[in-house]
Amino acid sequence: MKVRIPDATVARLPRYLRCLTDMSYTDGTCSSEDLANAAGVNSAQVRKDLSFLEAQGTRGVGYDHEDLRDQIRKALGLTTIHPVVVIGAGNMGSALANYKGFATWGFEIVAILDVDEKRIGTSSDGLIVEPLGRLEEIVAEEGVKIGVIATPRSAAQSVSDRLTASGVKSILNLAPTILKINEDVSVRRVDLSTELGILAFHLQS
Amino acid sequence: MKVRIPDATVARLPRYLRCLTDMSYTDGTCSSEDLANAAGVNSAQVRKDLSFLEAQGTRGVGYDHEDLRDQIRKALGLTTIHPVVVIGAGNMGSALANYKGFATWGFEIVAILDVDEKRIGTSSDGLIVEPLGRLEEIVAEEGVKIGVIATPRSAAQSVSDRLTASGVKSILNLAPTILKINEDVSVRRVDLSTELGILAFHLQS
Repeated sequence: MKVRIPDATVARLPRYLRCLTDMSYTDGTCSSEDLANAAGVNSAQVRKDLSFLEAQGTRGVGYDHEDLRDQIRKALGLTTIHPVVVIGAGNMGSALANYKGFATWGFEIVAILDVDEKRIGTSSDGLIVEPLGRLEEIVAEEGVKIGVIATPRSAAQSVSDRLTASGVKSILNLAPTILKINEDVSVRRVDLSTELGILAFHLQS
Repeated sequence: MKVRIPDATVARLPRYLRCLTDMSYTDGTCSSEDLANAAGVNSAQVRKDLSFLEAQGTRGVGYDHEDLRDQIRKALGLTTIHPVVVIGAGNMGSALANYKGFATWGFEIVAILDVDEKRIGTSSDGLIVEPLGRLEEIVAEEGVKIGVIATPRSAAQSVSDRLTASGVKSILNLAPTILKINEDVSVRRVDLSTELGILAFHLQS
């Protein structure tokens, strides 16, 4: 029987995966303390989070580094290729299209789309910017389930509606607005102003 | 006496501010239910979070919209201008430099720096890309306390060390790596692979 992994653990697993990728290790093992230090959480939390995986550490030795990476990838569903569409070929969308790191996590950006005639047809890291009109066709053809919204704020909601209507189930929203969206669609939101706002608060204390 | 605002509340306040900016309202008031719906949290949470502010809602009416925005800005320290440096003039750094939304939150990007000779001297939305060698000088001259790292992964730690050595107290890290950093410096991290990883997990269920 598969144990349901709590959301808070799910949110930390990619961070552990990032740390395991960054860490230099000599003997092929990794202790919960090493991982806790690298990830900036406490080691009891690491052990609890990892208890939801099939990976089992050895007391006094730690976890097998490769095995742990594999188990995290498996738990997150990163063992298959996920086709992704990016909407918006501005700086943010282009940054995404150019980022090689996605491929190593199993994400393949299959298309980048825009409404701007000046951008359509230009090349962004090997991908030709397509007209937004082709969105539904591309989602269907490529079996896309993940969409990234990198449009201006004003366009984000309508793009989101079109993505979900065409069957996309997960949205990463980089536009600085909060989307109204059905509950059966997962949304993650990255708002850089919000992040700076939190930093500004901490500057006061 | 100033009440200490819990971190979880601090993390939600910019989201409320974002919602209040987005919301169309007719009579100048905003109920905790309206705000809860817009922000995607429950209304009891909204009321609890807002209880840490000086803003007081009126039962059955709600909060004064403008007053609430002001109180959140005040609590977050967004009532003054915060000079910000961006390191890395690639797509991600340029996206930041071009983003007009920061100014309305009180963040002023005073410089964008890079090591790449091809980028130095080019213009990114009115800002000339400066050589990284000028970092310490600019931080001192402009009284910069917030730095944004938009470099490749390999350069992030050394840039972080230089920022903190020159007196920067808050770092927004957009490079896909986890920084080793002193405890008296606040760090927020945006890792788009991590966000996609969480979305991939939810696609499974």
